[in-house]
Amino acid sequence: MAEPRKIIIDTDPGQDDAAAIMLAFGSRTELEVLGITTVAGNVPLSLTSRNARIICEICDRRDIKVFAGADRPISRKLVTAEHVHGKTGLDGPVVDAPTMALQETHAVDFIIETLRREPAGAVTLCTLGPLTNIALAFRKAPDVVSRVRELVMMGGGFFEGGNITPAAEFNIYVDPEAADVIFRAGVPIVMMPLDVTHQLLTRKDRVKRIAEIGTAPAKAMVEMLEFFERFDVDKYGSDGGPLHDPTVIAYLLKPELFQGRDCNVEIEVQSELTVGMTVVDWWHVTDRKRNAKVMRHVDADGFFELLAERFARI
Amino acid sequence: MAEPRKIIIDTDPGQDDAAAIMLAFGSRTELEVLGITTVAGNVPLSLTSRNARIICEICDRRDIKVFAGADRPISRKLVTAEHVHGKTGLDGPVVDAPTMALQETHAVDFIIETLRREPAGAVTLCTLGPLTNIALAFRKAPDVVSRVRELVMMGGGFFEGGNITPAAEFNIYVDPEAADVIFRAGVPIVMMPLDVTHQLLTRKDRVKRIAEIGTAPAKAMVEMLEFFERFDVDKYGSDGGPLHDPTVIAYLLKPELFQGRDCNVEIEVQSELTVGMTVVDWWHVTDRKRNAKVMRHVDADGFFELLAERFARI
Amino acid sequence: MAEPRKIIIDTDPGQDDAAAIMLAFGSRTELEVLGITTVAGNVPLSLTSRNARIICEICDRRDIKVFAGADRPISRKLVTAEHVHGKTGLDGPVVDAPTMALQETHAVDFIIETLRREPAGAVTLCTLGPLTNIALAFRKAPDVVSRVRELVMMGGGFFEGGNITPAAEFNIYVDPEAADVIFRAGVPIVMMPLDVTHQLLTRKDRVKRIAEIGTAPAKAMVEMLEFFERFDVDKYGSDGGPLHDPTVIAYLLKPELFQGRDCNVEIEVQSELTVGMTVVDWWHVTDRKRNAKVMRHVDADGFFELLAERFARI
Amino acid sequence: MAEPRKIIIDTDPGQDDAAAIMLAFGSRTELEVLGITTVAGNVPLSLTSRNARIICEICDRRDIKVFAGADRPISRKLVTAEHVHGKTGLDGPVVDAPTMALQETHAVDFIIETLRREPAGAVTLCTLGPLTNIALAFRKAPDVVSRVRELVMMGGGFFEGGNITPAAEFNIYVDPEAADVIFRAGVPIVMMPLDVTHQLLTRKDRVKRIAEIGTAPAKAMVEMLEFFERFDVDKYGSDGGPLHDPTVIAYLLKPELFQGRDCNVEIEVQSELTVGMTVVDWWHVTDRKRNAKVMRHVDADGFFELLAERFARI
Repeated sequence: MAEPRKIIIDTDPGQDDAAAIMLAFGSRTELEVLGITTVAGNVPLSLTSRNARIICEICDRRDIKVFAGADRPISRKLVTAEHVHGKTGLDGPVVDAPTMALQETHAVDFIIETLRREPAGAVTLCTLGPLTNIALAFRKAPDVVSRVRELVMMGGGFFEGGNITPAAEFNIYVDPEAADVIFRAGVPIVMMPLDVTHQLLTRKDRVKRIAEIGTAPAKAMVEMLEFFERFDVDKYGSDGGPLHDPTVIAYLLKPELFQGRDCNVEIEVQSELTVGMTVVDWWHVTDRKRNAKVMRHVDADGFFELLAERFARI
Repeated sequence: MAEPRKIIIDTDPGQDDAAAIMLAFGSRTELEVLGITTVAGNVPLSLTSRNARIICEICDRRDIKVFAGADRPISRKLVTAEHVHGKTGLDGPVVDAPTMALQETHAVDFIIETLRREPAGAVTLCTLGPLTNIALAFRKAPDVVSRVRELVMMGGGFFEGGNITPAAEFNIYVDPEAADVIFRAGVPIVMMPLDVTHQLLTRKDRVKRIAEIGTAPAKAMVEMLEFFERFDVDKYGSDGGPLHDPTVIAYLLKPELFQGRDCNVEIEVQSELTVGMTVVDWWHVTDRKRNAKVMRHVDADGFFELLAERFARI
Repeated sequence: MAEPRKIIIDTDPGQDDAAAIMLAFGSRTELEVLGITTVAGNVPLSLTSRNARIICEICDRRDIKVFAGADRPISRKLVTAEHVHGKTGLDGPVVDAPTMALQETHAVDFIIETLRREPAGAVTLCTLGPLTNIALAFRKAPDVVSRVRELVMMGGGFFEGGNITPAAEFNIYVDPEAADVIFRAGVPIVMMPLDVTHQLLTRKDRVKRIAEIGTAPAKAMVEMLEFFERFDVDKYGSDGGPLHDPTVIAYLLKPELFQGRDCNVEIEVQSELTVGMTVVDWWHVTDRKRNAKVMRHVDADGFFELLAERFARI
Repeated sequence: MAEPRKIIIDTDPGQDDAAAIMLAFGSRTELEVLGITTVAGNVPLSLTSRNARIICEICDRRDIKVFAGADRPISRKLVTAEHVHGKTGLDGPVVDAPTMALQETHAVDFIIETLRREPAGAVTLCTLGPLTNIALAFRKAPDVVSRVRELVMMGGGFFEGGNITPAAEFNIYVDPEAADVIFRAGVPIVMMPLDVTHQLLTRKDRVKRIAEIGTAPAKAMVEMLEFFERFDVDKYGSDGGPLHDPTVIAYLLKPELFQGRDCNVEIEVQSELTVGMTVVDWWHVTDRKRNAKVMRHVDADGFFELLAERFARI
């Protein structure tokens, strides 16, 4: 039987980050979470660092190491998204302050040291927020870039447009310079854009399926999703909100759920109007290098089936 | 019975421009073509000026006045699209050099003088190419802006992305500064983007329907369409090519064929990566002013039905 | 004896524009003013068109034809400089409303028609304000570009920096896209930047010299200069204000007063921080094409001597 | 007697970096060099790390700790300047490979740890190259920003323009995003631009004065300067080359040699034409916050006097 795949989850929880982390926790046969690194994004760093530990504790995984990282983007002011995630970033369930401690090591150093310690090509980076920590690690220690097995990110959008602006998705918008570093780094990238995640609505029947699991983590997750969806239901008039971040973990578990294409992706960093846009050359109209596998379609029922199945195992 | 609506067609033919012009010629009850103004775009100005007259002659409309306009964008080098339209811009049928003369008046002055002469709110501008002529007219004679009834344009794209680059549609890409002038001018705009026109494929059955008309204009149109579609069939693997420009005229005849929304549209003019993009705030995530009616859906069968019906009347 | 050199003065008066126009009026042996074209800049178009005629009337030159041009830049909002020139643009002397009429022809058409009518290489364009009219003329009638003898402009700055922003001089800042058109047009350009004009301070002794002429035009000029200098005296703590626009006419009369170098000049149009900057490659560190003769030094005493001498001849 | 001032020298040697380091070494009463951190700039990181140690060894200062830092800018490709500094960056004297080892700690971590360990307000950062290391440290550990006493940098230019492009000075051009981070950080900045350093020509008499010291470090310095000056002598036709980097150390020793003004400085990061420009609001025409003390004048004789005096003490 194969060894579980070693992953680092870089995250700014966020209710949908929580769903991604829980999906990983429910998949111990396939995935070994080497650590969770936090970054400022949906809410400030102090809250994302708190939330990551709360999620671990909800799942009774106090063994997981959580490392705090960058508290702001490389060269922009921090923009946050309390209008989506609520004041704490994890609004919904009533939760206690975490009792687990943060690790002393900086997230950037944990990423660097882990990539250097583990065999080359062993570690997958799963990014659920702005790419600041990864970009800082790549700049501080360029030798680690070639040691990354794969970087699977939630971020960007193309035919679906943006969400925080007409042109840009939130994770990329918050730190476009960091995203630019990543997309130019030469690391193997799998990108889960809004085009995919907007197909994954938290419809009542799907949430009910999770509620029926009946465990404490599942209950907390349901309360988070019910809070989280209200923003997009209002905005798009859709039945449920789009579940962004768990796509990253789902891809590692069942890549066959997703369909996409190797494309060139460049990040807009110059213009205020379009800053943070992921310019995806889906139709190959340029001869720019194909630097990412960009997903466009997902088997939504299969995805929610996987979610329910794994949440039940936590 | 109502007077026909007075229009000026500003164009860079182009086979699909030809289809738009013929659609207007076949609709004399509803539309009075005050003049055709030409601009550099799909091919250089000398060819678009030639092609506009050829189309008139094919339809036996030597009474139409054709005015040559700008031979290049306001502040960029001219980019053309012979890879789509062929060397002449009207590749497909065998055609003779036109015998009609061009008017002596510059297109920009014809637009200005017509708007001043006709009653305020009487003249509709139909633009099928880059917006250079209109922008120059608006700058030279700001008083005419408020006299325009409506400007209906083929241009841009949003959820469908671009065609000449991943981000930009050809007409806007060629002269983004001109487009920027128009979208800031305060004139009532109806925009037909790629999102609409990519729903209008020249499928074999639709072309056959036109062929069955049997007249010389219909025959020439079929030969143009057969040449024109090959580019997009190759690129998208679709059944036929998208018919862009006739949407502008079809909207004047049967607006109920189209569905859209009032949105803010801004033009990217700063960044090389995204220049010429029409940033459409479809979801109203910004509080920028709604300056255009942006179409997104079209009744494709109704559209081709209208085309065939009117081509038969030429 | 040589024919006088034929010039069109394109201007946005402005007290220093007035000085330039008067310098031309005092030099009838050398210069024939074919017409004055006005543009929005220092103050709105209605005022620059008024002021141009007032200057003619002060000098008893009601024979001069004045043509109104563009009332705003090609693709930006108009920025004006009442903080320098006063509310009317010509603050200082008490003046009457002009009785001369404006010509009916648009400035852009006058420029085009004059360049086409006069022999190729016969007409010099003297620009004292934003380059909007010239850019519109070059775009509307590209054939006239090669017929221009020389375009002598007041605009830009390099080692001296800007005035309206740290990076940009006013004339270029107001319409950078127009300036970009001109610097790429291939027309022979002589550029009088702030580097030159800041050497030309309206010191008391120099103004006194003009006052001693004793004529009505000289008297009006002195009152204008006394108003005009106060802004720069406050800002730079200098003895008098810099006299910008007459450098253009002085160059035609006595080019030996000026020293400069053939350089590449590009116009910043992308970045808000530096927009309107004239990037002058004085040290030839790039291999970009040398497209302008950029002046850097002036014989200030010789210049004011010329001014006094010619003002006396009006 | 006062304690010597604690400094970290962040550098990309470079012959003029060498002169700066030697000036610090010759000033042990006033300055305590806590460490030297290296960055890619004039030449790649492997060479700047080699050169920093060579300089220590030439001065018999094997006790100095040298830490290697970033091998490339935050989000741009590395640009180097072998055309100025020669292939090794330290062309001129014949030198041996260094025998001192580099420290294991990354430069960024050394900067962070030192600022945390020393009392707040105790450590001055002296930057002689691109600002990559400092920006990475400020981003990884935002708490250290307020602990910096002062950041004295060689970089930028305003009335003097740029050197690597018409608009940009080399150190800022190489990593404009890093410079942008620094100028927005709120740290007290003293900036030594080309405006100052171009007043400091290595004239023959000045170099002779150093040669007369007769020590090994002085001899090596003279050989470096003779190599270094040839580039600017060719370019500007000046008598000697400008000595940039020692201004930073000279300022700490004798601030009265320099004259400047508190200004707002912003870094151009958007436009390719002007990227890396330090936009200095010398005349306070904007109301942007004054974030740097920008030097403009220097007592050149006093500066070279100081240099010779201190080089003699090494």
